[in-house]
Amino acid sequence: MSGGPAVNDRGLAYGDGLFETVRVTASGAAPLWPRHRARLLDGAARLRIPVAPDALDRCLADALTAAPPGTGLIKLILTRGPGGRGYLPPSHPTPSLFAQHGTVPEWSPLLRRDGIETGLCSEPLERDPLAGLKHLNRLPQVLARMEVARRGWHEGLLLDRRGCPLEATAMNLFALFGDTLWTPALDAAGVAGVGRAWLLARAGEQGRPVQVRLRPLSHLRTADSVFLINSVVGVLPVRKLAQWVWPVTAPVRQFQEDFEVLFS
Amino acid sequence: MSGGPAVNDRGLAYGDGLFETVRVTASGAAPLWPRHRARLLDGAARLRIPVAPDALDRCLADALTAAPPGTGLIKLILTRGPGGRGYLPPSHPTPSLFAQHGTVPEWSPLLRRDGIETGLCSEPLERDPLAGLKHLNRLPQVLARMEVARRGWHEGLLLDRRGCPLEATAMNLFALFGDTLWTPALDAAGVAGVGRAWLLARAGEQGRPVQVRLRPLSHLRTADSVFLINSVVGVLPVRKLAQWVWPVTAPVRQFQEDFEVLFS
Repeated sequence: MSGGPAVNDRGLAYGDGLFETVRVTASGAAPLWPRHRARLLDGAARLRIPVAPDALDRCLADALTAAPPGTGLIKLILTRGPGGRGYLPPSHPTPSLFAQHGTVPEWSPLLRRDGIETGLCSEPLERDPLAGLKHLNRLPQVLARMEVARRGWHEGLLLDRRGCPLEATAMNLFALFGDTLWTPALDAAGVAGVGRAWLLARAGEQGRPVQVRLRPLSHLRTADSVFLINSVVGVLPVRKLAQWVWPVTAPVRQFQEDFEVLFS
Repeated sequence: MSGGPAVNDRGLAYGDGLFETVRVTASGAAPLWPRHRARLLDGAARLRIPVAPDALDRCLADALTAAPPGTGLIKLILTRGPGGRGYLPPSHPTPSLFAQHGTVPEWSPLLRRDGIETGLCSEPLERDPLAGLKHLNRLPQVLARMEVARRGWHEGLLLDRRGCPLEATAMNLFALFGDTLWTPALDAAGVAGVGRAWLLARAGEQGRPVQVRLRPLSHLRTADSVFLINSVVGVLPVRKLAQWVWPVTAPVRQFQEDFEVLFS
């Protein structure tokens, strides 16, 4: 659909850009697009990549038009475009936008119902001045995901240097403590996911107490239930983290169903 | 010369790869190639990107053959290639190698002789589990280089979170204290440059005492001379860092000349 990048595109050269993976319905709707679009525009502003909101909408619309049957997600990559003198960007960059079609990753109904098994990744996730953004510098996640595969886990939890959980390699972490929904603050590291933002808004609508802050790993042990979310896969209950085990409780199933309704 | 990357190349998607910028002579020699090659192979092993040393040699040779007149550098990019399921690489990746021609960045003879003016970049360089490697996750350097341009410096110094100098945005830092050559250790963050490795070897040949360790910024103040090096530009004396000033001493000029001899 889009032409490929030039060899001197700064997205390839330095990871100088951002991406979004947008789940779409069979009828070609993208219900979470406004949230993806907002994060992409926020990231572009932070990185000083000049892009018009309309260009993003057009890129998604074109990708939806060109989508082959069975398309479940559209990945958009926005880069600062080609050129520059080494790390220094051109004074008037011409950003690139690339789109790809994909399918929603398969998770068995059994795992969706009973929960997944996770482990603790051995490398801490270091501080990131661009924390929150979905930028193209993703080597820490790639290496962590390779460890997850080597160890035979379904997903892996990344801790900060002080041992506080931040996120999973490709999903955000949540837990319920009584009525309270907890998720780590991502001011210092991690990706503030669109699924996470949707869930926090959903909890707000329910009048549920919400706590967004860093907590030591030991805090998780006392949770009533633990789960992961991203905007493509939705909610996956966590059955097991290392030696700890949690049940899948009714509110987690409810969040899972509420998310799926968006795409039905 | 090479075709461009696919949109789903992991180099673009995640910065999942490495690069080298190799200075070449007018007659098509690349005297520092063995060092570039060694670093690239080391990085590939660390990232588990399967690449044969011969493939790197062939890529450079082809790029040299195809080099237009005036080519002063060849940039090689090695990525893990296309595909994978999200962050997880394919179990049998097919790495990509891309080459680009370029010219050596211009630095006026005056600045090369009298030294450049530098400043302190405001963002610390965070820890990097892949410290030393020249990987494709370079957003911190891009943002730092943008600050250098905004402030009108020639280069900018990056400190770690405790205030110890690590490197400049695209060059390594050295200083002379009497006979002793000092450069920061780069175990926790920074790129261990090929120019830096060449210089450390050169100092060794001279029997000069060498100190490779982190030191607080205040330590620099007492240096007899301060300079930067990379394998493309060579040695640039630092005349000024913020309010501190250093002379350009004879040993620094000697290193500068020794480096240029490689490419004459």
